[in-house]
Amino acid sequence: MLLRMSTLFLRTLREDPADAEVPSHKLLVRAGYVRRVAPGIYSWLPLGKIVLENVARVVREEMNAMGGQEVLFPALLPREYYEATGRWTEYGDTLFRLKDRKGADYLLGPTHEELFTDLVKGEYSSYKDYPVVLYQIQTKYRDEARPRAGILRGREFVMKDSYSFDLDDDGLKRSYELHREAYIKMFDRLGLDYRICFAMSGAMGGSASEEFLAPCPTGEDTFVACHNCGYAANAEAVVTPAPPAVTGEPPALTLLDTPDTPTIESLVELVNDRYGLGVTAAGTLKNVVVKVRTPGSAETETVVIGVPGDREVDLKRLEAALSPGVPEIFEAADFARNPGLVRGYIGPQVLKKLGIRYLVDPRVTPGSAWVTGGNEQGVHAAGVVAGRDFEPDGTVEAAEVRAGDSCPRCAHPLSIDRGIEIGHIFQLGRKYADAAGLDALGPDGKPIRVTMGSYGVGVSRLVAVLAEQLHDGLGLVWPREVAPADVHIVGTGKENQIEVALRLAEELAAGGLRVLVDDRAGVSPGVKFKDAELLGVPTILIVGRGLGQGVVEVRDRVTGAKEEVPLDAAAERVRAAAGRAG
Amino acid sequence: MLLRMSTLFLRTLREDPADAEVPSHKLLVRAGYVRRVAPGIYSWLPLGKIVLENVARVVREEMNAMGGQEVLFPALLPREYYEATGRWTEYGDTLFRLKDRKGADYLLGPTHEELFTDLVKGEYSSYKDYPVVLYQIQTKYRDEARPRAGILRGREFVMKDSYSFDLDDDGLKRSYELHREAYIKMFDRLGLDYRICFAMSGAMGGSASEEFLAPCPTGEDTFVACHNCGYAANAEAVVTPAPPAVTGEPPALTLLDTPDTPTIESLVELVNDRYGLGVTAAGTLKNVVVKVRTPGSAETETVVIGVPGDREVDLKRLEAALSPGVPEIFEAADFARNPGLVRGYIGPQVLKKLGIRYLVDPRVTPGSAWVTGGNEQGVHAAGVVAGRDFEPDGTVEAAEVRAGDSCPRCAHPLSIDRGIEIGHIFQLGRKYADAAGLDALGPDGKPIRVTMGSYGVGVSRLVAVLAEQLHDGLGLVWPREVAPADVHIVGTGKENQIEVALRLAEELAAGGLRVLVDDRAGVSPGVKFKDAELLGVPTILIVGRGLGQGVVEVRDRVTGAKEEVPLDAAAERVRAAAGRAG
Repeated sequence: MLLRMSTLFLRTLREDPADAEVPSHKLLVRAGYVRRVAPGIYSWLPLGKIVLENVARVVREEMNAMGGQEVLFPALLPREYYEATGRWTEYGDTLFRLKDRKGADYLLGPTHEELFTDLVKGEYSSYKDYPVVLYQIQTKYRDEARPRAGILRGREFVMKDSYSFDLDDDGLKRSYELHREAYIKMFDRLGLDYRICFAMSGAMGGSASEEFLAPCPTGEDTFVACHNCGYAANAEAVVTPAPPAVTGEPPALTLLDTPDTPTIESLVELVNDRYGLGVTAAGTLKNVVVKVRTPGSAETETVVIGVPGDREVDLKRLEAALSPGVPEIFEAADFARNPGLVRGYIGPQVLKKLGIRYLVDPRVTPGSAWVTGGNEQGVHAAGVVAGRDFEPDGTVEAAEVRAGDSCPRCAHPLSIDRGIEIGHIFQLGRKYADAAGLDALGPDGKPIRVTMGSYGVGVSRLVAVLAEQLHDGLGLVWPREVAPADVHIVGTGKENQIEVALRLAEELAAGGLRVLVDDRAGVSPGVKFKDAELLGVPTILIVGRGLGQGVVEVRDRVTGAKEEVPLDAAAERVRAAAGRAG
Repeated sequence: MLLRMSTLFLRTLREDPADAEVPSHKLLVRAGYVRRVAPGIYSWLPLGKIVLENVARVVREEMNAMGGQEVLFPALLPREYYEATGRWTEYGDTLFRLKDRKGADYLLGPTHEELFTDLVKGEYSSYKDYPVVLYQIQTKYRDEARPRAGILRGREFVMKDSYSFDLDDDGLKRSYELHREAYIKMFDRLGLDYRICFAMSGAMGGSASEEFLAPCPTGEDTFVACHNCGYAANAEAVVTPAPPAVTGEPPALTLLDTPDTPTIESLVELVNDRYGLGVTAAGTLKNVVVKVRTPGSAETETVVIGVPGDREVDLKRLEAALSPGVPEIFEAADFARNPGLVRGYIGPQVLKKLGIRYLVDPRVTPGSAWVTGGNEQGVHAAGVVAGRDFEPDGTVEAAEVRAGDSCPRCAHPLSIDRGIEIGHIFQLGRKYADAAGLDALGPDGKPIRVTMGSYGVGVSRLVAVLAEQLHDGLGLVWPREVAPADVHIVGTGKENQIEVALRLAEELAAGGLRVLVDDRAGVSPGVKFKDAELLGVPTILIVGRGLGQGVVEVRDRVTGAKEEVPLDAAAERVRAAAGRAG
């Protein structure tokens, strides 16, 4: 491959685009890789298209290597598939919907679970057919409320999505593990820094779901990371280590007169001033009432969540913990119907009597004593002991996770880091097989309901993530595997430098290297160097003033190292840098 | 590449799909290459995806070789681009339109003229930047009224579309010629039978537009072909050779009493019976009145079209000939307003007096005499001589073209053939550059309006066209360049045949061949042979009962030739067939 800057459809920009906030967006636009068409919708220019294809190739090779078989579904899909699973409605505004000329409803596929399931159902029938892994690399559509950051969160984007189909849970685990290994190889080849984060709490099946997150200060996602042992998890998946049960003589339960204590802070201040308890917010027990709705049911259940007073309830953690139940706010009218729950003064002591389920943070261990509500207006209680004064119905991971909390694996203080989701692997189970009635005929003639895994990689997003992680003040710094070229040859000067640059370019291209050569006449060396640094090809070869002394310069875009090389050794030097020595 | 039938996601069908009418549709579904999702919307299964990618690769390689630069536009496009050129409305029901969550109008791109033009306008400014050729291979959407024939005419399909941008007409001609040559190489490599058809009459600029049509009995398009000299053209583009001017004494003009002659046949019969003229329908001159509307104008012009009475006016030819004017039907009310035009009895003798433009078929040569209308109810005239009794204002290619008409190039009788459009090259000119204001700054500081060419190839359609042209009673017969594999190795029998087949498969795959091996246990030889023939890989290697005698069989899927080969020579034999000998 030989690209000549004199004819390449590329115009770099000196200024950042006005709408760009993150480095990848600024650099990919400035370096002429992408151009905006509409919010969250971009065109790929020649160099961008090459990088996108390189990323797709790595993804494809690793999917093929793990036994995946490539298919290609349409993006324009009839409503009926998504109606059957309820997602036509559930997707809400994120789904692009349209009608054809006959008035039939269609959508632009945001993910293709329904199509994959239907395809397998149409082709396979016997248990002997399984397992199978199918994937596609395809354009997807989501009408994001806030498309941002260039191609990092677009409304039209390229995704690799794959699905595994197995006959039993062990098979699903194997397919999941194969994907996990393939993703590790893929992201390693791409030169990415990433963390594999637990995306679902251990209570729900261990490694049933993991996200691959690329740490990045501009990332939209936060995750909890241990910089000591490497543990990483979504906030929803963090497991709180339970302290040991408290033994020894428990304190007596005392009622406290605590008027005007609307906040934990005011409560702590008052009880310490008035009663000299020396308690901290972490020693108080905050009780939050919610209504939990089971999907498909009209009824809700009242549930009280107990967390240490120094922590908020994290609604996303609570939702994940109660799933498939959906927590809803307990409103004034609900309190009015439940006079036993005294708003602002709820203590767990009365919950058994009221028949209300009580779930506590794992820190509320048996024997632990708390300052909590006294279940009367203006009254709190101290020395309220778990196991004596109340009996929790179970624990719940609902309290916010904070930097400095203990790692559940090694007890080192945790950090809260920002990142970008680049991959997700998920033991989906039988949800879509149930909806489609996807069965395999078993050896005994009985149907076996198939179990599925779902695995995604954001292919176009990866281009932005690479740019986000791999750049410096001068421009992009592509890893070799995805770079638009192996070498960027710059011819500068007034003698025959451009001619020599072109000759070297042709020699290297003929040998199989991907070469970009700056053969532009009438462009200053400074502009050419700046463009080379901005474009980010890993090796830069400069044919400049040294040519008179028979030398050229080889620059490493990553380290910035410069080296003078005799002209006749230049090609070999570049081949070696590209890993093609000899 | 090594694909094993034991795990390949492929189930062939013995029966034709109920909705399939054409061979390619039947075979691509039966052989498990594609599956229907909705009318005109298909999924590509693993073997189909490979063939589609192979076709795309050939197209891409030839586009790169001719200097095209690949980009990728989104499919989801905001209305504003198409509003500017009027195509948001003009496209009518064929355009898929939708709204995003904010109510903004979007469409799914049917072609991308506007986007290409806008992109070049954004990047380029100087005359030094030109020429440039950009292309993409991308999914397109058209809401066809009658999607049919599987992937032959789909609503979601893959197209290569390219555009050339030049500063002058000579540049455009060069870019056009480069595309023409690239298309010839492309379609030759794909092993297609095709014709390059003039798509626009010579009067409008020679080779300004040509279509590549694949002759095919099931094709939707008809074209005019000379089987002697190779001339081919759309009906719209066929040029009628004008007979020589008639010399000698012209006959006198005679009025004929011709009541009740509503048709040419009844007229011919009556005048021969009553006046003994011995005239044929071809000797009568039929005059058809139309109103011609200039786009953007409220006025229409009345025009009379004269054609020999044995031919109908072909409205598509007339439209092409009058373009950009649009002919409309001359209705009863129009006749009422033009009493000089006596419906059913119009002769050209009065047109000059009425101030009506008269365009004639090229067969109406100077001096030719005709039986035509007498411009009075029930009256015709004989001996109406061109140049004496009327003077045409010009010729028009409006008469229908018929099989047996003379080839305009070699005078051999023409045929009317059916075909499928696989490519189109078109000197677009400045229409989109005008709409977008795409100028290059000239050397003198003055703007130069850019001129464009538009060039399309139906990539997914080509898969169907190949299947349509290259199949037999047994199944598909892929040309090697696009076949899903180089060799299909079939292991049959109860001994170690499958083992040997797999060993050969691995050896050949390791050597770089693309191998499909039928290693299915418990499947009969008959079924395996039938599948191999249906799938259409060009070389079939059978490891069967001959293995006991140390021989295997090599079959050529195209010729059907079978050859016994010693086992240890089999690999070399297959490599030779694949053009990889040595």
